[in-house]
Amino acid sequence: MAKKKDNKFRWHRRHLLGLHDLSRQEIQFILDTAKGFEQISTRSIKKAPTLRGRVVVNMFFEDSTRTRISFTLAANRLSADVIEFTKKSSSVSKGETLLDTARNLEAMGIDIVVIRHNAGGAPKFLSRNIDACVINAGDGFNEHPTQALLDCYTIQKTSGPLDGLKNSIVGDIAHSRVARSGIWAMTKLGAEITLVGPATLMPPKVDQLPVNVSYKLDDVIEQFDVINMLRIQFERMGGSAFPSTREYSHFLGLTAERMKRAKPDILVMHPGPINRGLEIESGVADGKNSVILQQVANGLAVRMAVLFLVNQTAIEEAKSK
Amino acid sequence: MAKKKDNKFRWHRRHLLGLHDLSRQEIQFILDTAKGFEQISTRSIKKAPTLRGRVVVNMFFEDSTRTRISFTLAANRLSADVIEFTKKSSSVSKGETLLDTARNLEAMGIDIVVIRHNAGGAPKFLSRNIDACVINAGDGFNEHPTQALLDCYTIQKTSGPLDGLKNSIVGDIAHSRVARSGIWAMTKLGAEITLVGPATLMPPKVDQLPVNVSYKLDDVIEQFDVINMLRIQFERMGGSAFPSTREYSHFLGLTAERMKRAKPDILVMHPGPINRGLEIESGVADGKNSVILQQVANGLAVRMAVLFLVNQTAIEEAKSK
Amino acid sequence: MAKKKDNKFRWHRRHLLGLHDLSRQEIQFILDTAKGFEQISTRSIKKAPTLRGRVVVNMFFEDSTRTRISFTLAANRLSADVIEFTKKSSSVSKGETLLDTARNLEAMGIDIVVIRHNAGGAPKFLSRNIDACVINAGDGFNEHPTQALLDCYTIQKTSGPLDGLKNSIVGDIAHSRVARSGIWAMTKLGAEITLVGPATLMPPKVDQLPVNVSYKLDDVIEQFDVINMLRIQFERMGGSAFPSTREYSHFLGLTAERMKRAKPDILVMHPGPINRGLEIESGVADGKNSVILQQVANGLAVRMAVLFLVNQTAIEEAKSK
Repeated sequence: MAKKKDNKFRWHRRHLLGLHDLSRQEIQFILDTAKGFEQISTRSIKKAPTLRGRVVVNMFFEDSTRTRISFTLAANRLSADVIEFTKKSSSVSKGETLLDTARNLEAMGIDIVVIRHNAGGAPKFLSRNIDACVINAGDGFNEHPTQALLDCYTIQKTSGPLDGLKNSIVGDIAHSRVARSGIWAMTKLGAEITLVGPATLMPPKVDQLPVNVSYKLDDVIEQFDVINMLRIQFERMGGSAFPSTREYSHFLGLTAERMKRAKPDILVMHPGPINRGLEIESGVADGKNSVILQQVANGLAVRMAVLFLVNQTAIEEAKSK
Repeated sequence: MAKKKDNKFRWHRRHLLGLHDLSRQEIQFILDTAKGFEQISTRSIKKAPTLRGRVVVNMFFEDSTRTRISFTLAANRLSADVIEFTKKSSSVSKGETLLDTARNLEAMGIDIVVIRHNAGGAPKFLSRNIDACVINAGDGFNEHPTQALLDCYTIQKTSGPLDGLKNSIVGDIAHSRVARSGIWAMTKLGAEITLVGPATLMPPKVDQLPVNVSYKLDDVIEQFDVINMLRIQFERMGGSAFPSTREYSHFLGLTAERMKRAKPDILVMHPGPINRGLEIESGVADGKNSVILQQVANGLAVRMAVLFLVNQTAIEEAKSK
Repeated sequence: MAKKKDNKFRWHRRHLLGLHDLSRQEIQFILDTAKGFEQISTRSIKKAPTLRGRVVVNMFFEDSTRTRISFTLAANRLSADVIEFTKKSSSVSKGETLLDTARNLEAMGIDIVVIRHNAGGAPKFLSRNIDACVINAGDGFNEHPTQALLDCYTIQKTSGPLDGLKNSIVGDIAHSRVARSGIWAMTKLGAEITLVGPATLMPPKVDQLPVNVSYKLDDVIEQFDVINMLRIQFERMGGSAFPSTREYSHFLGLTAERMKRAKPDILVMHPGPINRGLEIESGVADGKNSVILQQVANGLAVRMAVLFLVNQTAIEEAKSK
């Protein structure tokens, strides 16, 4: 029945800025669309003509190999042309504003801007000021929607619907856009979320979020169907938030020892790149419960779906003008 | 009549090194060719097979996002493969000469070299020593031909023929290759050029150039049909040439106040990236007289035309061998 | 007869890690395959659909313009998508291991990894741990197989079979992966190799290699059919190995004077980029005996062949699963 409803649903967004404002139906529609794209990546000729003659620009103001390459491959696979724009090589270092840069790229005929920016809200700002489609690839501490979408895709593919699942996010929640997008997506899809970490790493106004909070992983690990280990942010270590990586590993690291108390079929997730031996032990990262590499693979399908959907809307809007 | 003559004209150059040596007919032919390419960029599938299987290398020895991306997109749009070669990642840092680098790329089957170099004359030097086509994307203080071509294209598209138009170039003329190429192109097409700036920023032997000179923008702004604001070169500020950016803005900045004295339909141009509030006020840059973003868009059509024309000559020469 | 045997030979390797472990027949098979690809580069449309929809990643942990661009062009020419992954822009700087990086790229659907790494054995390590094809583009002081293959290709094309040829490698043999791969390839193909250089630049256990050793170029130059000049490694100058570049040039540099004593049809080779006036005089590098630019051109054909062959094996293995 739910599926039937989905079929009638029409996607109408030209941007993907975050998951906070998306409905359950919209999120599920992206995931269902991704399913159709997943098999392209398994063919020997991994190519569809969907975005031929369309131009995607990767505007990355923060370093990221993984996400950037994932978007590039997704766009290539749909036959789009991809332009790399990184802060360093750019006019931004000549003092040009983000908006001027984007408007200039748009004047050159860019269709889709994939933007990562250290300022939360930068993608939204762009989307209001240019006609090209905008996809948020991570903005400040705000959102990283495609990461949360690929997490949900991976859970659905492995464990089925998220309804009623008990999912956890462990680590530096305060500074994690992955966590924020994850909270919105997973709760909308029906999962119960527990954030695990010391109070110093909890986001402000955590009590207003639709989540449980636990300060000690050992107290709660046995309840979880899914555990999402966040990456240690080395640049925040040593301050008041957390004394050292050793302390972090001791209290929050996912060790083989801790895994003994977890459900036997718990899904172990991580947005990568992993710090082996810090937030996760090597044996656990590579173990039977880990779906970390599947997350990476599914990221491509999800990003192909997002590129396809926003472009579809842009083309329809252009036609109706 | 002029048009008929153009139709019989045959393009015969394998390089575009500058506009100084081009005839009016040649310049107009490039602009007419660009017209044909402009509409490709407005299609939903922005792709023509014109340069399929041809290889363009962007050899940029100076930073430039805008020009490099514009050439890359132009080449992609014509289905060429594009190789990025930047100084930093190159063997040039191992002490290899420009010529060896170019010869090596040529041996790999490169067809077109788009070169930006801090030494004036580098593109010409290359063109004499390799068989590949060479396009100058800016060399020292010498020329930046595609910028001047897109300026002329933009003026023709907006205001019609340049014959008799009173055009101005304002700012640091001495160090501007944009200004030099602009002078050659616009005068050949029949415009009257006035350079505006303090004597310290005028080029050597300015009296031998086919231009008027004015030292004060306020004295002459009311005469102009087109005003081309050059970018402030921060690295030259504070020396004897100009005391400060504040002084610069005060005497040469294009403000809303100054615009009141300009002709109501004056075209405001800028090669970008703009310094809002310095050489141009934000309101003017975004105002109704500004064609700055059109310049960017037209740059693509002009570069597609140039790539097409030099490649055409190369193919014909190869056949006749 | 030899040719007939080659036709029955079936290539079965999914990786090209080095030439030490390859048979004469395998090496010759790559060279024969390259012959078929060479003519693609001479067409006006330099494109074959061979690798369409396949993804090649250039994983370069050491700077290299020439080799990286050669692989990129080879892959483009076969219609593959190419992803650039350089150390700097990568998660490796976030502490991720080589293996995690490669596994992640593989999860994204990469088919072929072209790797250059400062650690000898890195490509082999990768090949044992991922399913993608691995091509060694230079690992530490170990091997640089495609360079040696293009050298052999160039010799065969110019001088015919290597059997009985007297070939020399001159310079810093100890630190040269080009030399090592060259020794394996050329001796397997029947050439007699002489290493020329001071004892301090000879590799350890040189007496166990299938080569002659000479300490003075002047003593032996007259014997050689081929002379392969290695690049001066500036970073090793001034130490105990060699006092200065001047000394190096004096004893090992290939000058016009020295060339007088060489065979009139000696082939002069260099892996590039050359240091004019140091290991080789300009007149000699550009002279009638030099095949240095042909080496570069042939590199493309050889790399197209290698990409084609390993990909072929991967596709056959995938089918038979």
